[in-house]
Amino acid sequence: MYRNFKVLPLIALSFFAMPAPAANHPTMAEVLSASRPSDWRPLDPDNTLYAELPSGRVVIELAPAFAPLHVANIKALARAKYFDGLSIIRAQDDYVVQWGDPDNLRPLPAGIGKLAPEFDSPISRPPSFTRLPDGDVYAPEVGFSNGFPAARAPKPQLAWLAHCYAMVGVARDLDVQSGSGAELYVVIGQAPRQLDRNVALVGRVVKGMELLSSLPRGGAEMGFYAHAEQRTPIKSIRIAADVPASERSDLEVIRTDSAAFAALIESRRNRPEEFFRVQAGHIGLCNVPIAVRERQQSGSQSP
Amino acid sequence: MYRNFKVLPLIALSFFAMPAPAANHPTMAEVLSASRPSDWRPLDPDNTLYAELPSGRVVIELAPAFAPLHVANIKALARAKYFDGLSIIRAQDDYVVQWGDPDNLRPLPAGIGKLAPEFDSPISRPPSFTRLPDGDVYAPEVGFSNGFPAARAPKPQLAWLAHCYAMVGVARDLDVQSGSGAELYVVIGQAPRQLDRNVALVGRVVKGMELLSSLPRGGAEMGFYAHAEQRTPIKSIRIAADVPASERSDLEVIRTDSAAFAALIESRRNRPEEFFRVQAGHIGLCNVPIAVRERQQSGSQSP
Repeated sequence: MYRNFKVLPLIALSFFAMPAPAANHPTMAEVLSASRPSDWRPLDPDNTLYAELPSGRVVIELAPAFAPLHVANIKALARAKYFDGLSIIRAQDDYVVQWGDPDNLRPLPAGIGKLAPEFDSPISRPPSFTRLPDGDVYAPEVGFSNGFPAARAPKPQLAWLAHCYAMVGVARDLDVQSGSGAELYVVIGQAPRQLDRNVALVGRVVKGMELLSSLPRGGAEMGFYAHAEQRTPIKSIRIAADVPASERSDLEVIRTDSAAFAALIESRRNRPEEFFRVQAGHIGLCNVPIAVRERQQSGSQSP
Repeated sequence: MYRNFKVLPLIALSFFAMPAPAANHPTMAEVLSASRPSDWRPLDPDNTLYAELPSGRVVIELAPAFAPLHVANIKALARAKYFDGLSIIRAQDDYVVQWGDPDNLRPLPAGIGKLAPEFDSPISRPPSFTRLPDGDVYAPEVGFSNGFPAARAPKPQLAWLAHCYAMVGVARDLDVQSGSGAELYVVIGQAPRQLDRNVALVGRVVKGMELLSSLPRGGAEMGFYAHAEQRTPIKSIRIAADVPASERSDLEVIRTDSAAFAALIESRRNRPEEFFRVQAGHIGLCNVPIAVRERQQSGSQSP
């Protein structure tokens, strides 16, 4: 019955039409199906990591625009095979999974050290920002910057990545200059936005999240594993560009400044599926799915 | 160094003091440690479920104030041992775990049927509401009602439970009157607030979430398990009052209308721990931990 209502214009601050009109805009599946090749961009092999676990591959897209020093360190560590044979040492429910050197025995390779904080950046540095008009509890502005959930403050002119599900950050100690990239964490629960601007976020897991999020939780404090045998080994972490092309995960990400992505957001803000009796009218930053898929090869794009 | 700043008053809509002053209020651990017995309430055995899995017990507090018909159905189903031997049939990453009859073969016990929607309620029905002043993307007002995250709209005078992590809901089909309580789901990811007012929420997992959230994700559509052997069996679901006292989980929940809970919220809104260089200044509804602990027996309270 809702299908016969007309679509109301979206007014960001008007809560609740009652009963809710059903939208007759497309579903997310329909948006993706109707998207054009130009609505997508392939992952850049130079800024993509493959973390190989016994259960499979976790693919991470790096965000050098926000944390160039940390990303450079992580890439140098991967090239030095620093991560190979380390472990997932922590899985704290509704919070993070973390990996690194469980015994703090492995020295950092020569030339790689602890870094000055890249917890936020000048607002002009990230190359794009597509604002989400729905509002946010934590930041004055939120949106998407080239595939990553981000936030910014016109005063004091700062931008930063947001701690949404699947975001990857650099663990550090109390000293703000104590992170090197040798120990990384991934968000596996409700977005811990209180961490925004307190750590360097460096990327996002774009495939394989379920290999991390379904790990048994650690029983020691903060979700660390109490026993070595509970840890999951990291077989290797490699930069995609260093992996033979035939072994790469050929993925593409929706362009977050495209009309297709705007349509995707609307398909999730006001769900057109018949199941939804009431439409939310708004969407939280971390509730927007940033679509990733196997790369669709068109004839003209083939090498 | 931040420790020497004075505490600024919290102003809900002023974003960003820069640099952030460190709060000198207590941490959450200190708040809980300083709380009094009267800041806590024991779980009501008549409105507590124990879902027994091979890996252990999941404890659910039911919310009859919001969904009395659905809670009554679920309790009747538990008393009829309807759930015993059913399975967890779905685990969709960053969304929900769901259990029920995988083959839809088990008839509902006599007298238990599909229910009219209890997706929201008159604003006056829930006995309490402690507002969280930090704002929300999805609802005009959010807060806590007797231990549950909740939302409300002064117009049209409705209240409802919010889909935060660990909330338990009643699965249904497209028909709004198709849920019985025989199939339940639990939120295991970023709060899917778009489901608010579209399904009947009936309670919250207060212990054992990690037994659900760490389950392998299902490989079929919507996270359903493709193969029967991937499902986790439900040994039994019982009402705590029906379990011998010696076998009960003796838990207590912080009173969400207490001063201690207000202090807990502030300890999470502006984290006083030295790690935090920037304090958020705000907190999302689903980021507030509703503390649960083993019941602290004082001498005078012993039977």
